[in-house]
Amino acid sequence: MAIVLGPNQYGKAETHLVRITRDTPRHEIVDLNVTTAMRGDFSEAFVSGDQRRVLPTDTQKNTAYVWSKTHDPDPIEEYGLSLARHFVEVEPIVAARIEIERFGWKRVAIDGTEHDHTWIRSGEEIRTAAITVEKSGESHVVQGLKDFVILKSTGSEFKDFLIDEYTTLQPTTDRVMATSLVAQWRVSGDLDGIDWNGMYAGVKSAMVERFANLHSLALQQTLWEMGRAALELYPQIAEIRLSAPNKHHFLVDFSHFDVENNGEVFHADDRPYGLIQTTVERDDAPPAGDAWRISAGLA
Amino acid sequence: MAIVLGPNQYGKAETHLVRITRDTPRHEIVDLNVTTAMRGDFSEAFVSGDQRRVLPTDTQKNTAYVWSKTHDPDPIEEYGLSLARHFVEVEPIVAARIEIERFGWKRVAIDGTEHDHTWIRSGEEIRTAAITVEKSGESHVVQGLKDFVILKSTGSEFKDFLIDEYTTLQPTTDRVMATSLVAQWRVSGDLDGIDWNGMYAGVKSAMVERFANLHSLALQQTLWEMGRAALELYPQIAEIRLSAPNKHHFLVDFSHFDVENNGEVFHADDRPYGLIQTTVERDDAPPAGDAWRISAGLA
Amino acid sequence: MAIVLGPNQYGKAETHLVRITRDTPRHEIVDLNVTTAMRGDFSEAFVSGDQRRVLPTDTQKNTAYVWSKTHDPDPIEEYGLSLARHFVEVEPIVAARIEIERFGWKRVAIDGTEHDHTWIRSGEEIRTAAITVEKSGESHVVQGLKDFVILKSTGSEFKDFLIDEYTTLQPTTDRVMATSLVAQWRVSGDLDGIDWNGMYAGVKSAMVERFANLHSLALQQTLWEMGRAALELYPQIAEIRLSAPNKHHFLVDFSHFDVENNGEVFHADDRPYGLIQTTVERDDAPPAGDAWRISAGLA
Amino acid sequence: MAIVLGPNQYGKAETHLVRITRDTPRHEIVDLNVTTAMRGDFSEAFVSGDQRRVLPTDTQKNTAYVWSKTHDPDPIEEYGLSLARHFVEVEPIVAARIEIERFGWKRVAIDGTEHDHTWIRSGEEIRTAAITVEKSGESHVVQGLKDFVILKSTGSEFKDFLIDEYTTLQPTTDRVMATSLVAQWRVSGDLDGIDWNGMYAGVKSAMVERFANLHSLALQQTLWEMGRAALELYPQIAEIRLSAPNKHHFLVDFSHFDVENNGEVFHADDRPYGLIQTTVERDDAPPAGDAWRISAGLA
Repeated sequence: MAIVLGPNQYGKAETHLVRITRDTPRHEIVDLNVTTAMRGDFSEAFVSGDQRRVLPTDTQKNTAYVWSKTHDPDPIEEYGLSLARHFVEVEPIVAARIEIERFGWKRVAIDGTEHDHTWIRSGEEIRTAAITVEKSGESHVVQGLKDFVILKSTGSEFKDFLIDEYTTLQPTTDRVMATSLVAQWRVSGDLDGIDWNGMYAGVKSAMVERFANLHSLALQQTLWEMGRAALELYPQIAEIRLSAPNKHHFLVDFSHFDVENNGEVFHADDRPYGLIQTTVERDDAPPAGDAWRISAGLA
Repeated sequence: MAIVLGPNQYGKAETHLVRITRDTPRHEIVDLNVTTAMRGDFSEAFVSGDQRRVLPTDTQKNTAYVWSKTHDPDPIEEYGLSLARHFVEVEPIVAARIEIERFGWKRVAIDGTEHDHTWIRSGEEIRTAAITVEKSGESHVVQGLKDFVILKSTGSEFKDFLIDEYTTLQPTTDRVMATSLVAQWRVSGDLDGIDWNGMYAGVKSAMVERFANLHSLALQQTLWEMGRAALELYPQIAEIRLSAPNKHHFLVDFSHFDVENNGEVFHADDRPYGLIQTTVERDDAPPAGDAWRISAGLA
Repeated sequence: MAIVLGPNQYGKAETHLVRITRDTPRHEIVDLNVTTAMRGDFSEAFVSGDQRRVLPTDTQKNTAYVWSKTHDPDPIEEYGLSLARHFVEVEPIVAARIEIERFGWKRVAIDGTEHDHTWIRSGEEIRTAAITVEKSGESHVVQGLKDFVILKSTGSEFKDFLIDEYTTLQPTTDRVMATSLVAQWRVSGDLDGIDWNGMYAGVKSAMVERFANLHSLALQQTLWEMGRAALELYPQIAEIRLSAPNKHHFLVDFSHFDVENNGEVFHADDRPYGLIQTTVERDDAPPAGDAWRISAGLA
Repeated sequence: MAIVLGPNQYGKAETHLVRITRDTPRHEIVDLNVTTAMRGDFSEAFVSGDQRRVLPTDTQKNTAYVWSKTHDPDPIEEYGLSLARHFVEVEPIVAARIEIERFGWKRVAIDGTEHDHTWIRSGEEIRTAAITVEKSGESHVVQGLKDFVILKSTGSEFKDFLIDEYTTLQPTTDRVMATSLVAQWRVSGDLDGIDWNGMYAGVKSAMVERFANLHSLALQQTLWEMGRAALELYPQIAEIRLSAPNKHHFLVDFSHFDVENNGEVFHADDRPYGLIQTTVERDDAPPAGDAWRISAGLA
């Protein structure tokens, strides 16, 4: 009936690191927000304040910076794996978690010619990676994206739903469907030789195709089809998790005016919003271990 | 080797609901951000698009509004439990998750007299509750707070830490310690008769006392002591989870100027920040079930 | 018909500076976000890139830090005036603009005893100051507050408004009125001997009293009365500017349910919102000069 | 020595309006955040609470929605002018201010074929317009952009600056230069027949070219050249205002490690930041009137 220390971790969150490659006049840019978290037996730091087993979070930050010079930060998954494998070699550390956000930059083109060293921040989505490495060698990569806003102006229904005494919603056979997608897909086990950039582009493209081309009876159905498309394309993906706010676009009521509104003018509302969250997985997927145990949560 | 639907849930997130009690000239205000999520077998909604078992998120929103009239929204834990128990009575729903943020309002006083119907938003912290109710009757309440920023200007050290080749941090025996605390504590099982408002005030007060009075050797030690204080005070609490960014206050370097800086002038930095996360628990705590399975995540 | 350089300024925005006074065991904290901007003839920096007249923004930041040690940062208006007067002594600088946000901290009390060195961030409002000093000696202080959220649950009407063919709003004689107030009041000319902290408390208190006690026919009327109360109280104030979003609280429609909603359950909407902006001034106010010319805009 | 009402305005801020054109299977989307503000003699609404001259902000919102159906919302400048001209025909309204943010959407392409009704939100920048129309007919359009983040990894110096006793900054002949640009350019007088979309693309393109190709001695110089390029291209533009945070990228100090950092690894800092603000104008520009008098400030 004692009070005891439970699961814990610590690290440095949101090191905003920009890596320029300038070996030739044509530079490259990689822009990352890196979070590191260490796991192991740090109970003395908590219980008695003894820091002898604690690698400072400041050191973790320094290491993330140095690593971006000594190891290619692109793809971010390889960089994260390498950094995590380094940390688990430090004696008290039993597992390392690296969470990365990658911000997009588009090379400037002037009169059709790409510029050597100027870019514009491209906000289409944020690419994410969450890498977990155990000292035992067990490793997981959760690749993903967030802030990916996609909309279709037709081809979406919502009808024949359950009705109770508090239901006032009218069914519709044609609505705007929009979401700001968070998607994360897990690769566990043998991580060698994976074309991470190819996989990222492939999953994104497959999900966009499904969203666009499926005549949707519900956001649930669209998410299932998007997840399925990703898993069909890449046998290495064990599971995909999707979190999708239903960004409501309400048709504005024009009945008081001498003007028709045939699905043309919408109020894009902020809150509240529907929120659909699901996993699509293989029935023989390898165990997830701590693959989904977050640190800063890709803040 | 099939692709199958995994865990899923859906609901209405962030219904911003303000409830005024006006039975007497002295009004009361309760200001809530309510998220509801339903769990059960909704596979047909995903796989075939059949919505017959889906209670619309719009209906969930309506219900949350009505419930704030027919049931006292204060304390939020009782309101949430009552709302969740209603939802699990709807046929296909096997479990309901209610997440609530409560925003503070302070009654205006004019010349020492409290005003009947005017308040100022008090931003000290946001109170949170996450209620999980299973159709089986199993229930959990996770009470908590977030955005609680607390700082001490002395009484905090960080030294004798692990040093590796990437360590440049200097030890210190006197620093500013500040965090924006997220704390969540779980009560499971018999939830009747608990004085939720009393518990909230008690846990907050105990944590503040420990933060202030403990001479801290590390943020880890402070968190352990804060969590321990909460569990010692309330035997009903099974565990507490603490997430604490180390909001760095860097002493500004005055060495180039003819002025001393003896722990007086600091740069409050934004990013990166240390992040310490831990659980303090009873070794005989009842199982957590889905108590920690989030929906919108108290967004 | 030439293209010429127009008005310009430059500086360091958002230096987040925390000043601890620790001369006795009972510490004090002042938490500031300081923006500095320099005005003068910097045309060569623009037109030819010649930086010889440009005091780096990094130097401005250093100076703001040092100044918080050598000059009391409380009240912020005196600190800002002193810092601005220093800058206009640097040769090319003709005028300096200092914008300050002050964040509130509340001293922790434990069992009724105030703690010497621990505080909680108090988010009730952010106090602001914008100081303009010309090399000529002309000076202005614009004191203010922002993010001040105030609500009354009755005592507010909106009716008998102009109606055109696009009007669907129904009049009301009882509604919730809420705003997130930005108020800024100008003191020009002789700035010596003003009790800035007293004035801040006095204006805030007078505005709160008017908001609460006036039976309001419109947010416009409430703002006028609030501004008038401030000017009546402090003859030194030349004018006050108020910007007030009408944070709509919509009564939720319960007509489909067997429950009444007599001004009790509201949806607090995010966007769009009404926005009322006005100035209340003395008809013999001294000229404002550049008192309202912003830099970072109290971001 | 009386207290009087000064300048005022009121309106509806941030109506988030999405307009779908669906006359053919290939739909179009225009996504706008519209703010309207009315100016005139509304003193009775303030002083006595009499609303008879006040067109409700709710009506303004309705009108903005209807207008997006009856008038093409693309280009936003024409839509805003038309809406403003409508409002000044309502009797008490003397001037109308319309502020618009336009969010970018990129049509989805699947296997190289553009999709008829699906788009991805493209966050490169937000296009803005601020339209002012006086009942007298005087009109101004301020076209612009914001949140436009652009970076060059070389070709930027900062040296030979003014040094005082608080200066510690080291000069550099090669640094990263990055900003999140706000640019607004004014067209006054005869607004007929202007190709607004062409002008927007042209100004943006000219500014990007200058940012990229100018070897910069200071952000000031870059801004001057960018502004000049815009005005040279479009004789209709009377002036351009630029506000540019210097988003500091600090070279990480690797001197303690056995690794070199030759302008390759940077810490992208949040605050504080330099802030350069300037106007580039024609010396015979027509008067600006209220062209720069903001309402919600393109929030």
